[in-house]
Amino acid sequence: MPETLADIGEFGLIDRIEALLQKEGVRPRELVIGMGDDCAAFRPRPGMDLLATCDAMVEGRHYLSRHISALDLGRRAMTINISDIGAMGGTPVYALVSLGLQSNTPVEDVDALYLGFVEALRPFHAVIMGGNITSSGGADFIDITLIGEIPAGTAVRRSTARPGDVILVTGYPGEAAAGLQILLSDPSAPGLYDHPLVKAYINPSHRAIEGAAIARSGLATAMIDISDGLLGDLGHICDESKVGAWLHQKGLPVSPSLQEAARQLERDPLEFVLGNSDDYELIITCPRENAEQIGSVIRASGSVAVTAIGEITAPSEDAGVISMISTDGPVRRLDRSGWNHFFQ
Amino acid sequence: MPETLADIGEFGLIDRIEALLQKEGVRPRELVIGMGDDCAAFRPRPGMDLLATCDAMVEGRHYLSRHISALDLGRRAMTINISDIGAMGGTPVYALVSLGLQSNTPVEDVDALYLGFVEALRPFHAVIMGGNITSSGGADFIDITLIGEIPAGTAVRRSTARPGDVILVTGYPGEAAAGLQILLSDPSAPGLYDHPLVKAYINPSHRAIEGAAIARSGLATAMIDISDGLLGDLGHICDESKVGAWLHQKGLPVSPSLQEAARQLERDPLEFVLGNSDDYELIITCPRENAEQIGSVIRASGSVAVTAIGEITAPSEDAGVISMISTDGPVRRLDRSGWNHFFQ
Repeated sequence: MPETLADIGEFGLIDRIEALLQKEGVRPRELVIGMGDDCAAFRPRPGMDLLATCDAMVEGRHYLSRHISALDLGRRAMTINISDIGAMGGTPVYALVSLGLQSNTPVEDVDALYLGFVEALRPFHAVIMGGNITSSGGADFIDITLIGEIPAGTAVRRSTARPGDVILVTGYPGEAAAGLQILLSDPSAPGLYDHPLVKAYINPSHRAIEGAAIARSGLATAMIDISDGLLGDLGHICDESKVGAWLHQKGLPVSPSLQEAARQLERDPLEFVLGNSDDYELIITCPRENAEQIGSVIRASGSVAVTAIGEITAPSEDAGVISMISTDGPVRRLDRSGWNHFFQ
Repeated sequence: MPETLADIGEFGLIDRIEALLQKEGVRPRELVIGMGDDCAAFRPRPGMDLLATCDAMVEGRHYLSRHISALDLGRRAMTINISDIGAMGGTPVYALVSLGLQSNTPVEDVDALYLGFVEALRPFHAVIMGGNITSSGGADFIDITLIGEIPAGTAVRRSTARPGDVILVTGYPGEAAAGLQILLSDPSAPGLYDHPLVKAYINPSHRAIEGAAIARSGLATAMIDISDGLLGDLGHICDESKVGAWLHQKGLPVSPSLQEAARQLERDPLEFVLGNSDDYELIITCPRENAEQIGSVIRASGSVAVTAIGEITAPSEDAGVISMISTDGPVRRLDRSGWNHFFQ
């Protein structure tokens, strides 16, 4: 029988995690007090604004523990929060991790979770400075608060897109959603976890390096990460900026592996590209004359693709409306909850 | 049927909370971006260190919703976090609230929860700047991250008590624990919620005003709030400071209402004073010559009692040991998990 949380108790677990983090982690000079006191304390760097985000994942709702390892789950939970910091153009610095776990959870799984957190934070020299562990009443949860920093006044918001702006998107939205469907359709298929789309779901990428470079460039008017799907999050930009948008169906990025997966799943690939998904790509808006340069900034930060997919429109009487110029001609008004092939 | 979360949906709820907070809350000048973007953003004040703590409450484990109203629950959850900030000497500034709620939760209860949060934050002009809401898989949870500030380098730690220091405690530890027993022993007793000890459990006080004044005075060597009980938290000071402690049984503060309640419950009052409890008093250590002055600082901040209960001792071969000089003479070594009358 593996050792469980009930075996080592709350304080035993805290000591173990402290030791693990000390071994794995870096300790930034500005961290005045780390774990082990009533609070953590840090000294903010002059000239910086601080960003704060928090995101919870609940077992059964946001993940299925039988389909994801503890290491992948830890990495994924932290990546989702890093994505939020990156979507404002910030860089993660400090995390607080709050876990609700059943008392029969193997201690090894908790170690693996933390290794996943640390792995996601490492490229930024960001650290876990505190947190909380409690026995969960029913389903487990992982709740992370992530604090980031950004030069004062340079955070890129979702409420500042302007009519005429080009809409850019990084990567290939929808791959993770298709990956999840592949996973659920035949969970015992051999080699399943090597499928590129399943990988995109289990181990999503954030675009925080790209987001920070975009904020530094000052070239974008608005930015958001895709966590509610391309249409959902473009919708947030439209609502908050009080504008509309159109998309060019022909211009939407559909990767060959998504094409192939959609064919096998007998689904329209656009359902995945436009609908709810779990890839954490960025939507960026900018004046037309900046689009080329933003593309260069993104390509200089890594190897991710960037595609112009449409344009921000003036607020009509119906702000927040997103339309699509379809391949076969007609303009369709889109349902923001997702793409429905039969919706006119 | 009252309106539930399932009726209004995630975004409906977020809009509702934003409106409620805008009506109820203050907006500090340093809050650059509040709710409604990927992150909140704030500008730290120069010369300040930031403190961060997070504490989760799970239904069934940390509270029983049938015994506490949503308003009281919100106030209590925030108070527990304020207590942690106060125990370092800091002042709360910004909160992130993460809720896991069942979809049949009445919307009115969520409003009441937030009003409770706001009520606890209001004396500090602190605000909720962000958070997360998700449907819970089983038991509800409330997870709060609270950020506080303190003049740089003045946070009072738990690891810095020194041999010879006097041990002070605020208020009457154990009242909340006795209140909980009263509540559980006869939940339908008339006038139950007017009982002073039941009130101490349902609506605990923090000592953050006092804690900040103590940190400003520079007179204390160590400080911690009592959330694991007097012995448990004095034990944390001993472990982290690598010292021991003794207590004077005669000097322990036992309020008349706790005496009376213990008699009725047929329990030793010291079980409540020393054992696990839910009152959020402070343990403070200081050189003997500062004790009088710390008393004055605490009394100047409010009406809470302060009592000298013992002394920090040199680290013996057995660091972390707490002994008690009992009323009837002999010195007893205490079991830190609580007071056992028959334990020698």
